Amino acid sequence: MKVVITGGTGFIGRMLAKRILELGQLTGPSGAREDVDEVLLFDAVAPGGPLPGLDERARVVTGDIADRDLVFDLVDRDDISVFHLASVVSGGGELDFDLAIRVNLTGGLNILEATRARRGKPRVVFASSVAVFGGAAMPKRVGDTTKQTPQTTYGATKAIGELLINDYSRKGFLDGRSARLPTVIVRPGKPNLAASSFASGVIREPLNGETCILPVKPETAMPVLGYRNIVEGFVRLHEVLPEVLGDDRAINFPSLTVTVAEMIAGLRRVAGNRHLGEIVVEPDPRIEAIVATWPTETDSSRARTLGLPLDEGIDPIIQAYIEDFLGE
Amino acid sequence: MKVVITGGTGFIGRMLAKRILELGQLTGPSGAREDVDEVLLFDAVAPGGPLPGLDERARVVTGDIADRDLVFDLVDRDDISVFHLASVVSGGGELDFDLAIRVNLTGGLNILEATRARRGKPRVVFASSVAVFGGAAMPKRVGDTTKQTPQTTYGATKAIGELLINDYSRKGFLDGRSARLPTVIVRPGKPNLAASSFASGVIREPLNGETCILPVKPETAMPVLGYRNIVEGFVRLHEVLPEVLGDDRAINFPSLTVTVAEMIAGLRRVAGNRHLGEIVVEPDPRIEAIVATWPTETDSSRARTLGLPLDEGIDPIIQAYIEDFLGE
Repeated sequence: MKVVITGGTGFIGRMLAKRILELGQLTGPSGAREDVDEVLLFDAVAPGGPLPGLDERARVVTGDIADRDLVFDLVDRDDISVFHLASVVSGGGELDFDLAIRVNLTGGLNILEATRARRGKPRVVFASSVAVFGGAAMPKRVGDTTKQTPQTTYGATKAIGELLINDYSRKGFLDGRSARLPTVIVRPGKPNLAASSFASGVIREPLNGETCILPVKPETAMPVLGYRNIVEGFVRLHEVLPEVLGDDRAINFPSLTVTVAEMIAGLRRVAGNRHLGEIVVEPDPRIEAIVATWPTETDSSRARTLGLPLDEGIDPIIQAYIEDFLGE
Repeated sequence: MKVVITGGTGFIGRMLAKRILELGQLTGPSGAREDVDEVLLFDAVAPGGPLPGLDERARVVTGDIADRDLVFDLVDRDDISVFHLASVVSGGGELDFDLAIRVNLTGGLNILEATRARRGKPRVVFASSVAVFGGAAMPKRVGDTTKQTPQTTYGATKAIGELLINDYSRKGFLDGRSARLPTVIVRPGKPNLAASSFASGVIREPLNGETCILPVKPETAMPVLGYRNIVEGFVRLHEVLPEVLGDDRAINFPSLTVTVAEMIAGLRRVAGNRHLGEIVVEPDPRIEAIVATWPTETDSSRARTLGLPLDEGIDPIIQAYIEDFLGE
């Protein structure tokens, strides 16, 4: 079978591709486990360099997800699964509304339509976000039955995506699942336009000996999950039997609620004698305003029932990053 | 100022146009009450005959709401308000998914974009529906903070419309409000493809001396509101000050919960000595399946606080229909 990963050259896309290639099999539309012979990483931009951990089964295609014909060309087999991760992120969507609608809404519809056009009911795993929650009526702890009143265009398009995944699944056009992700840490590389970018930066930059400008107060709390368990959760959610999912296929991923101060304390514990770059607190009202709309705690009991994994604390998350990216 | 009513030649569209012409003024984007000099009724189909109660300020335009250029041509003044009622209905959407997406989603986006292109923040009142609710986790009584898990494509597109109205309003592109309507009774004329069509038919057909084939069991309960208060509610929701609406601009309209049997009992009370056509119970599994997904009771406390009106019982609703459409 073939696996398409949109946003495939992004951090999670690449890690997911690597993991699927390692596993070698997924459950196909037939309901049986099938060998994965092709992993297509689709993205708007070409990767800057080689993609480690991928082999000859992997292929990169770049293009515009709002181009319907192109998307139909990518989803070109009936024995297929799609992981739809491509998205304009939260901060980016606030800066460019039209791009967020084009990529997240039009692009998302293209993915759903292209999958619908295949025979059978291919599985589609859609990366949603806790940014679907927000607003004055949001409870402190958000669950799978909490009303979605997003306060960013990013969150609004993710909530729309969840509704579409549910309706396309209900109609039998495909077999969809929405993974409602907390903040993913620790992302390697450079900061991005996500308002949550600092949550990785506050660990990554000091470990690189660089200064981190923290745009929020250290007492800022948020739900987080380490990238290893994000990737594992995507694979496990893909494998869940459709009949277990019921009529609401959107699932809060497991998360830990931590403050930035707790992340920094974890960093100091795990770093040992390593020299750490400085952390300078310089609250940015634009970032703080976005982060303030997000929930700080998620009820993920359904995800846990489905076997989606959770980190045991902040320290193992930081340790994994050091192992995977600092080569130690 | 100008008022655009999409779905304008439909029953509620025409009644709303008539009411706005009677009132003569609405609050414009300036925040002041302005004289209404044009009411544009836009619809996919031309009305079958003359539209009573309209005057020289009213104009009908027919066309495809998915035609972006056409929609931009209709929303052609800055001193404007839009009542967006056009929609593929529930039963119709289940029969033609693509049409529901085209009219409700693409068409809705065209309305929002055309309004956004105007100077100021024109008010947009969007007709949503309690069909946004549904599914296994739906509580018996749905409120403004109940999660939306629609079980029809119609309901899904209405929930998406509410999300877009909230986000376009948050961005300051327009000043939107979503009117989450219960079943509207008593619609005159012929049955339509709405799964709730029988709720009007069970009163209308007997009063016309015709046989009504009832596709659901008499104990079927649903939230209803008489059309006079639907129309009045649209006008009052349009007039609410934006600062009162907060970050969730979707509001459950007031409703009465009645069973079909109670409607029939009301009909017999109000009809007096009139000859009534027969009511034949012939449950239709397709209609019953759709209706079963809808809530039976709505918490409309916020709507009541905003001054949206509620009928005192089923009898005055039936009486109003007799006065307005049977000329008595």
